[in-house]
Amino acid sequence: MVMTQEMKERLEKSLSPKRFSHSQGVASAARELATRYGVDVEAAETAGWLHDCAKQVPLTDMQAYVRQAGYTVDRAVWNSPALLHGPAGAALAASEYGVRNHHVLRAIFYHTVGRKMMSPLEKIVFLADYIEPGRDFPGVERIRAAAKVSLNAGVLAGIEATLHHLLETGSTIYIGTVETRNWILESEENID
Amino acid sequence: MVMTQEMKERLEKSLSPKRFSHSQGVASAARELATRYGVDVEAAETAGWLHDCAKQVPLTDMQAYVRQAGYTVDRAVWNSPALLHGPAGAALAASEYGVRNHHVLRAIFYHTVGRKMMSPLEKIVFLADYIEPGRDFPGVERIRAAAKVSLNAGVLAGIEATLHHLLETGSTIYIGTVETRNWILESEENID
Repeated sequence: MVMTQEMKERLEKSLSPKRFSHSQGVASAARELATRYGVDVEAAETAGWLHDCAKQVPLTDMQAYVRQAGYTVDRAVWNSPALLHGPAGAALAASEYGVRNHHVLRAIFYHTVGRKMMSPLEKIVFLADYIEPGRDFPGVERIRAAAKVSLNAGVLAGIEATLHHLLETGSTIYIGTVETRNWILESEENID
Repeated sequence: MVMTQEMKERLEKSLSPKRFSHSQGVASAARELATRYGVDVEAAETAGWLHDCAKQVPLTDMQAYVRQAGYTVDRAVWNSPALLHGPAGAALAASEYGVRNHHVLRAIFYHTVGRKMMSPLEKIVFLADYIEPGRDFPGVERIRAAAKVSLNAGVLAGIEATLHHLLETGSTIYIGTVETRNWILESEENID
């Protein structure tokens, strides 16, 4: 599952320069994590490139993609562009970019909040989104360091940064994010 | 719904001196909050006294009380003394202390994690548990100050202190706690 030049050109047309550059960074970070943790490198890089492919379309378009793909999401996700762009991105990656590898599609689908039973590839894209070279926010270095310990440690550090941010800004917390964190804490496979 | 001398004596026998003193503090703080916010003062004080009445029995006894009362709880609550002592306390307050007022019973039931649609009385006991005079932990003054702004502000500050603590200690977060917080943030009645 390789990201072709044609796919990159198509992606560049549908994203702002800043978002395209972020996508390139996530592809690069995902490639590095995949190499470190023995995961399919091409799949990780492609999912990294495409994770935000539906990020900059209106919510109604995201909903149309998700409906057409036959995906099911809960109401909190359905009504939030910040949450729905993952599932919508998976739908678009399949319909517009010709991605058939369902591991890649799931990594795009779940990159925003994770899920119980995340695969290593899903963890990589989730984590790469936090630590790609262009990211600069309070605490990012802690997540980068955790990413070198294990995928689980990195994902936990990313989720915790998000939860601290949501607490500090008085924002609601999507339950799925907490479920992902609880699952990792309770997982017996804490070395990956 | 008054807390009689006989009920206090019975409670004192079933709790450690420290826990009994905490219960007295919660009764006092609940009385003060109820006065401030125009809620039934006797009910608040009684619920405050009894909120931890099942705190120091073994988990299997808590489960027996809850089963006998016909209460339904989810699995995470069922298996955790820290969560189940609320429902078990409500069961015990009814069966052993003769409490019939279902507002009081619910305030005991939900004092640990709250719930969507908490009543003002439920908020008062939840909050009094954090701010009673004997409490001394990092951030308690922030919760005491918030409790003077509104019941919702106080409950939010309490939940946030708990979430920070669970994040710092790498502990799982009970989903119901986050649901309570989301509900308060989304509630239109932010002045109570």
